Amino acid sequence: MRKPYSLVAALWLAVALGCAAPTPPPAAESTADPLPSWNDGTAKQSILEFVARVTDAGGPDFVPAAERIAVFDNDGTLWSEQPMYFQLFFALERVRAMAPEHPEWATLQPFKAVLDNDMQTLAATGEHGLLEIVAATHAGMTTDEFAAIVSDWIATATHPTTGRPYTEMVYQPMLELLAYLRANGFKTFIVSGGGIEFMRPWTEAVYGIPPEQVVGSSIKTVFEMRDDRPVLVRLPEIDFIDDKDGKPVGINSHIGRRPIAAFGNSDGDLQMLQWTAAGDGPSLCLYVHHTDGEREWAYDRESHIGRLDAGLDEAGERGWTVADMKNDWKRIFAFEE
Amino acid sequence: MRKPYSLVAALWLAVALGCAAPTPPPAAESTADPLPSWNDGTAKQSILEFVARVTDAGGPDFVPAAERIAVFDNDGTLWSEQPMYFQLFFALERVRAMAPEHPEWATLQPFKAVLDNDMQTLAATGEHGLLEIVAATHAGMTTDEFAAIVSDWIATATHPTTGRPYTEMVYQPMLELLAYLRANGFKTFIVSGGGIEFMRPWTEAVYGIPPEQVVGSSIKTVFEMRDDRPVLVRLPEIDFIDDKDGKPVGINSHIGRRPIAAFGNSDGDLQMLQWTAAGDGPSLCLYVHHTDGEREWAYDRESHIGRLDAGLDEAGERGWTVADMKNDWKRIFAFEE
Repeated sequence: MRKPYSLVAALWLAVALGCAAPTPPPAAESTADPLPSWNDGTAKQSILEFVARVTDAGGPDFVPAAERIAVFDNDGTLWSEQPMYFQLFFALERVRAMAPEHPEWATLQPFKAVLDNDMQTLAATGEHGLLEIVAATHAGMTTDEFAAIVSDWIATATHPTTGRPYTEMVYQPMLELLAYLRANGFKTFIVSGGGIEFMRPWTEAVYGIPPEQVVGSSIKTVFEMRDDRPVLVRLPEIDFIDDKDGKPVGINSHIGRRPIAAFGNSDGDLQMLQWTAAGDGPSLCLYVHHTDGEREWAYDRESHIGRLDAGLDEAGERGWTVADMKNDWKRIFAFEE
Repeated sequence: MRKPYSLVAALWLAVALGCAAPTPPPAAESTADPLPSWNDGTAKQSILEFVARVTDAGGPDFVPAAERIAVFDNDGTLWSEQPMYFQLFFALERVRAMAPEHPEWATLQPFKAVLDNDMQTLAATGEHGLLEIVAATHAGMTTDEFAAIVSDWIATATHPTTGRPYTEMVYQPMLELLAYLRANGFKTFIVSGGGIEFMRPWTEAVYGIPPEQVVGSSIKTVFEMRDDRPVLVRLPEIDFIDDKDGKPVGINSHIGRRPIAAFGNSDGDLQMLQWTAAGDGPSLCLYVHHTDGEREWAYDRESHIGRLDAGLDEAGERGWTVADMKNDWKRIFAFEE
């Protein structure tokens, strides 16, 4: 099921990478283990020990529940991001769905490239081309209309190589981790470079994370009265990019206090982990390392998507936890069962 | 205790208004009434009926707890805003506190006017002058440093006419309303034109509203490494004004779903109430009307601060609730007791 994708720069960076078919997972253990899909090892142990420390009411590292803020990157940390960020598949499929209303796209780039499924040419249109696609597919409608479009898409769209709904391409160990943290009084947030309004329609059902705990990139919106009814209209203008240096800014803007736990998988998450680690009290910083080319994808320092290079070095220097997907995760996807 | 203040435009609009000394309050009733500081009347009744409707699991207007979002303006809705927005007192007092480090301010406007306590001249410097004061007092430090400055100030500063700490200038009926809504599964948010980082250090202690549920105006911040330690530095540049048309935009950005209850006191809250009222299900929109010149301040259509003009008309047309402070509130401030 290998399929080539070309490089598409800018907001989403996409590369040609294939993946092997998933192999059967080991059976989940039936114990009181809160993290049954995690193998015993240093990664699992560091999570369990951290939670025990900050919830020990008599201990020196106790953190009141209100301050137990945990932030999670999304693409590559909670769900897969190969062979392209899933939001880019959404955008390309929207171009195809909208094409009948736009006959001019048959000859107009970058749209023609999308309709021809010509990723080489699409990539050649560069950042400008991609922003045109974002503007055409993500702007020009009300926030309610966009939420409905996303909800309809996510309910039916399937991943190009696994054939699974995108909402099944989420990591079972991370779902367990989210639930475990919440059971221990943590408030869990997504802090993603992906679109905030692209995520909110489904994060509550899939991750148990409500819209008000989702931080992401955004385009500008404007309030308007239409037929005596107020609407928020999405404008083709970037408002905020919640990536790299932007992640601590987004955390401060939306959450207003420093997390004590942060989970990412790429250099785009590095500043978020640095910001979290620099708090006064105890903190847990964890990188998900994509090491499993059989069950998922294997990539790190050289990847155009989800590159983990400087972050991997810093994790070593600072003693952060690295979860090796191949060795630390018994099961990656729930559908492996 | 009358003291004149001149008009200071722009982000904060300040006018010369005095207030009478507070009169003794009626004794609070000792009943199971969840809103003991509210007199029986249509305002109180509309609140009780709304909460009963949306929490009636078998009823036609039931709203799941996760969707019970209530948004509150701050200045003039949760605490007083006379004779000037309290954040403006903070800014002016910061200028005075910082003056020893800025000998040039002795002759430089708008700072000289502040140091001379010359509100006429300060007002004459207009929006540009006020933005210079904001830049000098609210920017140039890290977010942690600013939070500490605000915390120190709010712990000691007192209101110029009542002599009370600003955190005692909060409305007892609204504290009861916040607690009542939360007891009924609502998530309560502040959505204020005031500075988001000016409010967050104290809203949890005063209102029970945590930082992540505070939406407000903001200046830009930037991530920096200083001595191998990450900081967020506050820049002298407006990021977002959470007022009027901006309030639904701020709600959408921070909360990501439409409130079912909204509370304001001025035309600056009108779009927030319109946005809330336009939801598909039941909604409660309430204006606090400043009608009590004895116990608080009386102002509405002509006021430079907290003007309530178009909003009052629209409340009448749409049947929104108007809480008349003089007649609907048994007690305004807890210190009246």
